[in-house]
Amino acid sequence: MEANASHHLYSIGVDLGGTNTVYALVDTHGNILKCDGFPTATTTVEEWADKLSGGILEMTESIKKDNISGIGIGAPCANAVTGCIEAATDLPWRSPIPLAVMIESRTGMKTVITNDANAAAIGEMAYGAAKGLTNFIVITLGTGVGAGVVVDGHLLTGRSGFAGELGHVTFPFALDRDCACGRKGCLQTVASAKGVVKTARLMMEKTDMNSTLRDLDEKSLTAKAVSEAANAGDELAKAVYDHTGRCLGAAAAEFAAFTDPEAIILFGGVSKAGCLLLEPMKREFDNCALHLYKGRVKFLCSQLKDADAAVLGAASLPMIVS
Amino acid sequence: MEANASHHLYSIGVDLGGTNTVYALVDTHGNILKCDGFPTATTTVEEWADKLSGGILEMTESIKKDNISGIGIGAPCANAVTGCIEAATDLPWRSPIPLAVMIESRTGMKTVITNDANAAAIGEMAYGAAKGLTNFIVITLGTGVGAGVVVDGHLLTGRSGFAGELGHVTFPFALDRDCACGRKGCLQTVASAKGVVKTARLMMEKTDMNSTLRDLDEKSLTAKAVSEAANAGDELAKAVYDHTGRCLGAAAAEFAAFTDPEAIILFGGVSKAGCLLLEPMKREFDNCALHLYKGRVKFLCSQLKDADAAVLGAASLPMIVS
Repeated sequence: MEANASHHLYSIGVDLGGTNTVYALVDTHGNILKCDGFPTATTTVEEWADKLSGGILEMTESIKKDNISGIGIGAPCANAVTGCIEAATDLPWRSPIPLAVMIESRTGMKTVITNDANAAAIGEMAYGAAKGLTNFIVITLGTGVGAGVVVDGHLLTGRSGFAGELGHVTFPFALDRDCACGRKGCLQTVASAKGVVKTARLMMEKTDMNSTLRDLDEKSLTAKAVSEAANAGDELAKAVYDHTGRCLGAAAAEFAAFTDPEAIILFGGVSKAGCLLLEPMKREFDNCALHLYKGRVKFLCSQLKDADAAVLGAASLPMIVS
Repeated sequence: MEANASHHLYSIGVDLGGTNTVYALVDTHGNILKCDGFPTATTTVEEWADKLSGGILEMTESIKKDNISGIGIGAPCANAVTGCIEAATDLPWRSPIPLAVMIESRTGMKTVITNDANAAAIGEMAYGAAKGLTNFIVITLGTGVGAGVVVDGHLLTGRSGFAGELGHVTFPFALDRDCACGRKGCLQTVASAKGVVKTARLMMEKTDMNSTLRDLDEKSLTAKAVSEAANAGDELAKAVYDHTGRCLGAAAAEFAAFTDPEAIILFGGVSKAGCLLLEPMKREFDNCALHLYKGRVKFLCSQLKDADAAVLGAASLPMIVS
């Protein structure tokens, strides 16, 4: 295995998100050599697989196939054991999807998959904010909300690979919100990109606060627009992120009782709001948590830019299992 | 180490509970050879340490010290790393308590400590309901509520040994109840022995249901009395356990999202109500849980009698680390 691994100079990492699919050619030192992507929404999953496989084959055209260890894909509800996406509520296609086989047959490259949040946690541990940590939780805030949970240096997998679905833990602060999973109260309904927009809408309806967000049409009111307005000093937009951060802090206080983490790391689109989220999150955590954890957890944002952690984490998968 | 371990034929397991302290002489096959105990409540922790150490020395009088690997203690809020009990809210003494050193200096035997619920989980995995399982949660229902969480065959410890404090995860169904930790809404306020009694009191106040429990004075109304009444067909007592079971099921639905367990095992005094708890627990779990976990988790009661799992788990500690 060692001898075999030594001529694997590259691997492909894929981040299949609810909104975008990003894929990259990565070397064994974690450098992203080439990167490309496309919007995830295609009519059929076959169409998506054709697009991704075509892109990967084009990206690796000039490289000897023997030098590539394989393709690693991070995707919502991906089951590392079966190679299938099972019951994903954040993707446009019907589950189950035999993802590993679909890409392997189209590219001729060995393909392994894992939960997108777990891929992010592996990436953060190897190259990012969790370097050197053995007890931490990465919470991914994007189209959906997920988590990769590392305890005592070990990434939790669980019986069927579905450990760490923390976006679907329910909380009193979200009980009036419907989740894509069919239940009410999931963290995801508040802390995802859609959740942030929903909070902004509710605040505009229920308060008289002035806000530049009131001038935006439905399509332009995105989580990104809210964070830009907040960073420009817009009071309502700041209140939206303050609320989101406090909800995340209250949630983190419950999560701490499970794994006694050293750090909680925010990752993904919504986390780009940075200290707009971290500051109220930390305050509410210390307000809510059991005395054993109070003041003892670091709150960080991913130090890897854009989708890098997810792509790097995914890329490390075929190297680990080759 | 192997050669050294081979002449260790025995070890001492101690279960320090909020109500009783139980200690036992255990052989390497997990047989309890001698067992004794006393009520935990003493004026000072030194008095307790004298009592326990005296009992252990008497119990091991006829055994060569070289044949004993040491003493393992399972206790609330015990930190395996420091050997101290830190900030325990269910014990009559002030924390921190340097427990390992106190017993080691009195007995001359190597002493290691761990969280009582973790000791129970180790005991269940080695000898009980979790034999052969690699993903499960043991929830201990006694004076307090704790948990030992095993994921992918590994008992979660966390940064400071405080993983699995699931009795202090808060839930909407308990938000009107004050916890010994100073907060409101902890699972412990409903699912502990005191919680069961509190629920019985509230139901007697708020309903007109006939019940034999109404004839009991304050001291006689215990969780055990409620479960005996329920088993004898008392409608109010049955409703108390139905409520407790449903709360545990709703809690377990949130816990499942963390570790994707194969089984959840109830342990400790309150769990002796057996299917009075398990049946409503399972029903509410399947009602509340995310689709990924629905119908896929087994609910079991400890198969080890009385404090055996805690004592056996504790006894295995000095063998593991010797």
